[in-house]
Amino acid sequence: MKVRILDISTGGIKVVVLNDEDASKLNLYALDRIRIRKDKKSVVAILDISDGMVRKGELGVFKEVSDFLKLKNKDKVKIEYVEKPKSIYYIKEKLDGEILNKEEINEIVKDVIHDKLNEIEIAYFISGCYKYGLDLEEVSNLTKAIVDNSRKLNLNKKVIVDKHSSGGIPGNRTSMIIVPILAAAGLVIPKTSSKAITSPSGTADTMGVFCNVEFTVKEIEKIVKKTNGCLVWGGTKELASADDKLIKIERPLSLDPEGIMLASIMSKKFSVGAKYLLIDIPVGRNAKVKSMKRAMHLKNKFINLGKKLGIKVRVMISDGRQPIGNGVGPVLEAKDVLRVLKNDGVEDLKNKSVEMAGMIFEMVGYKNGRKKALEILESGKSYEKFKEIVEMQKGKIKDIKLSDIKYNFRSKKKGKIVSIDNNIVNRVCRILGCPREKEAGIYFNFKIGGKVEKGDKLFIVYAKDKKKLKESLSLLNGIVVVN
Amino acid sequence: MKVRILDISTGGIKVVVLNDEDASKLNLYALDRIRIRKDKKSVVAILDISDGMVRKGELGVFKEVSDFLKLKNKDKVKIEYVEKPKSIYYIKEKLDGEILNKEEINEIVKDVIHDKLNEIEIAYFISGCYKYGLDLEEVSNLTKAIVDNSRKLNLNKKVIVDKHSSGGIPGNRTSMIIVPILAAAGLVIPKTSSKAITSPSGTADTMGVFCNVEFTVKEIEKIVKKTNGCLVWGGTKELASADDKLIKIERPLSLDPEGIMLASIMSKKFSVGAKYLLIDIPVGRNAKVKSMKRAMHLKNKFINLGKKLGIKVRVMISDGRQPIGNGVGPVLEAKDVLRVLKNDGVEDLKNKSVEMAGMIFEMVGYKNGRKKALEILESGKSYEKFKEIVEMQKGKIKDIKLSDIKYNFRSKKKGKIVSIDNNIVNRVCRILGCPREKEAGIYFNFKIGGKVEKGDKLFIVYAKDKKKLKESLSLLNGIVVVN
Repeated sequence: MKVRILDISTGGIKVVVLNDEDASKLNLYALDRIRIRKDKKSVVAILDISDGMVRKGELGVFKEVSDFLKLKNKDKVKIEYVEKPKSIYYIKEKLDGEILNKEEINEIVKDVIHDKLNEIEIAYFISGCYKYGLDLEEVSNLTKAIVDNSRKLNLNKKVIVDKHSSGGIPGNRTSMIIVPILAAAGLVIPKTSSKAITSPSGTADTMGVFCNVEFTVKEIEKIVKKTNGCLVWGGTKELASADDKLIKIERPLSLDPEGIMLASIMSKKFSVGAKYLLIDIPVGRNAKVKSMKRAMHLKNKFINLGKKLGIKVRVMISDGRQPIGNGVGPVLEAKDVLRVLKNDGVEDLKNKSVEMAGMIFEMVGYKNGRKKALEILESGKSYEKFKEIVEMQKGKIKDIKLSDIKYNFRSKKKGKIVSIDNNIVNRVCRILGCPREKEAGIYFNFKIGGKVEKGDKLFIVYAKDKKKLKESLSLLNGIVVVN
Repeated sequence: MKVRILDISTGGIKVVVLNDEDASKLNLYALDRIRIRKDKKSVVAILDISDGMVRKGELGVFKEVSDFLKLKNKDKVKIEYVEKPKSIYYIKEKLDGEILNKEEINEIVKDVIHDKLNEIEIAYFISGCYKYGLDLEEVSNLTKAIVDNSRKLNLNKKVIVDKHSSGGIPGNRTSMIIVPILAAAGLVIPKTSSKAITSPSGTADTMGVFCNVEFTVKEIEKIVKKTNGCLVWGGTKELASADDKLIKIERPLSLDPEGIMLASIMSKKFSVGAKYLLIDIPVGRNAKVKSMKRAMHLKNKFINLGKKLGIKVRVMISDGRQPIGNGVGPVLEAKDVLRVLKNDGVEDLKNKSVEMAGMIFEMVGYKNGRKKALEILESGKSYEKFKEIVEMQKGKIKDIKLSDIKYNFRSKKKGKIVSIDNNIVNRVCRILGCPREKEAGIYFNFKIGGKVEKGDKLFIVYAKDKKKLKESLSLLNGIVVVN
């Protein structure tokens, strides 16, 4: 066949294209695997068939293939049919409700990571996991397979700790306080966090107000070796990369099979070498976990999975009824974090962070963990540590200005705050442009239980421009209920 | 955004590509739907994200999109996020085991046909059907949806009949005899057939020895109006096109959910307007249907589905233990067909065809159908009709030469033929190059029950070249068992 370079890439999967007449002559079908040989080099690609894009006798090659084989237009190559990879048969087994063993799961994950499986095939794997679930052994093997087939953080430290929150709570920026407290006490906590997906700001977004959050594995190692901690984005392609590829295929139907979710979380902790892990599960009608029953179910799963993986896991079930801290949105949250580190209020965020840091201290053997955490925080050592981490991440602490475009939402009556709706808070902040618009967001003057007079400012809405502020107004009534 | 035309097409689905930085700014994800506006025209496409293919501020557009909006490089377009189509939610319901109603199934099929669903989403639909099956109502609604969203044959005839075989039996070319018999008697039978997929030759391949088999719906209507019948390929994109798209997604895991299979068959019959349908289910260890139990199960499904759809269905369960006719492979089968039409032997193919034609005569009200079919065949009227159909399909009956490259396989002992293995027959013929190599194939001198002496020629293998013949030799021992 004569090569025709197609100036297109898939971002991973190797694709070649045949004219439909040629394909039919060769008994090849779309999605078959084809080996392409050029001299002594060869590579396997997935076949696409087109009725106009390539001519008879031509093989269209995507960028991934032409780069790999160093092909030029009109090069001659040989092609041959290749059997399906073994992982396809294991996926079929999962779709038929069978339990997969370690080797089978590893084969699937390896082929996902190395782009040997196409999106349809991965979708069938996710269907199988969605329908039949994964048992403890399978989740543990999936976790290990994700870790084994990606890069790991290499810190040469014995006591590495970590924390995770199941999420959904606006403003819940405990990591930015816990990491400096623990790191200041000599524990090693290489914290990787997510960016906002459905929330106004993730820890990586809020940290991004001060400094860089995207680093290579080598750079992360350097930061942690110097400061004992880091607060970086966990999405680097080097760590747990199977994860991203599975999540991409889950998105169209918003599937989130529990087993894959558990493996996804645990693989991130495993790949940074954590031996002690505290998991925070906020429960509330508008949190990600809505019932105590569900929280207990997840708690058991995490603890048992930790045992399998050799990670000591403790789970804290927390109040997820309202935002944590006063501000929601990258800059407002960053301000809250600084206030806590400087002993300047924001009690709920402070208390929760100290509580969690204390639990981690106790997990590694300290007595009175909470007291120790509070001492470090109030001594200012954790603020110093935070500045050190921010500097290592190529930033500095600066005074952050808030937007002038704002709106005071006042209480229409006297009474007590009964509830704050996380979902509407999230929605309003998204409309305001969070997390892209860093200064946008909501600042709460009161939280649940607070007593207000008619006309009190319940919260302040900050926006980058007036148009967005206006768009959000109709939703504001639903945020706080006073009774 | 500034348009960048990407010289690539998907063959249907509209795809646009954004730089990953832009996508992240706009909170867009791979596989999201985006509306692209150019002046007053707009179209919805599925988003792909690339880290190198398009620059910041650029929107890469596939051919389907640039053709539709008549875009040129550097045109300015606006983009906006579009909610997922309703069909996505119905697919999720099916994946959760729910039963879909008529509107929901129609929505899915419509979106499949109009390329509004991507391959991942279709894979989830197939997963749901594979796991939970489709009940009678669902299969009926799926059939109607496939038909309603494609073109139908418009013949203005009252009595349209059809036949179908569940397949797997080499040489089973009854359609090429049944169609001319029935058409000669004034029944209308617009027969569409498949090309070989896993067999050495399909009816469309064997018919292809004489004439064209690929026609548009308009052309098929013309042929049938003139001759009462046709023998064409059923794969034209105009008829039942959802079918092809579902089958493409089933292939990677070789899934074949029964409900989709039934709807696929019935939609083809429904879209040609058939009111009477005879289905042949050959049963045998090496046939597609391996047990009588399975055959009875399918029989009931077909009959009940026919009732729902207003098609009178009769099912014949036939002997599927060995090939039908003497020859296997396009030319050898074509020769068998001509011999039957000219009253020159090939008794098994003749008997089965007359039997089936007779059953169809009886379905539409004739008494002694078998006798009537035999009379027409032996009178030569069906041969005349066959020639007429071949001519209308732009071909003519010609004397077909067999290949000189052949091999006589002789019996190693005296005895009776106990079995013939359809699977090995198929495999050998594929190695010989069937159906592409029209002259290649196997000619049987004996069938099951035949008495042979040591040294008798059991069968003759025909090949296009010596290399392929040699490749097939090692398998020949397994074809016929003498005892």
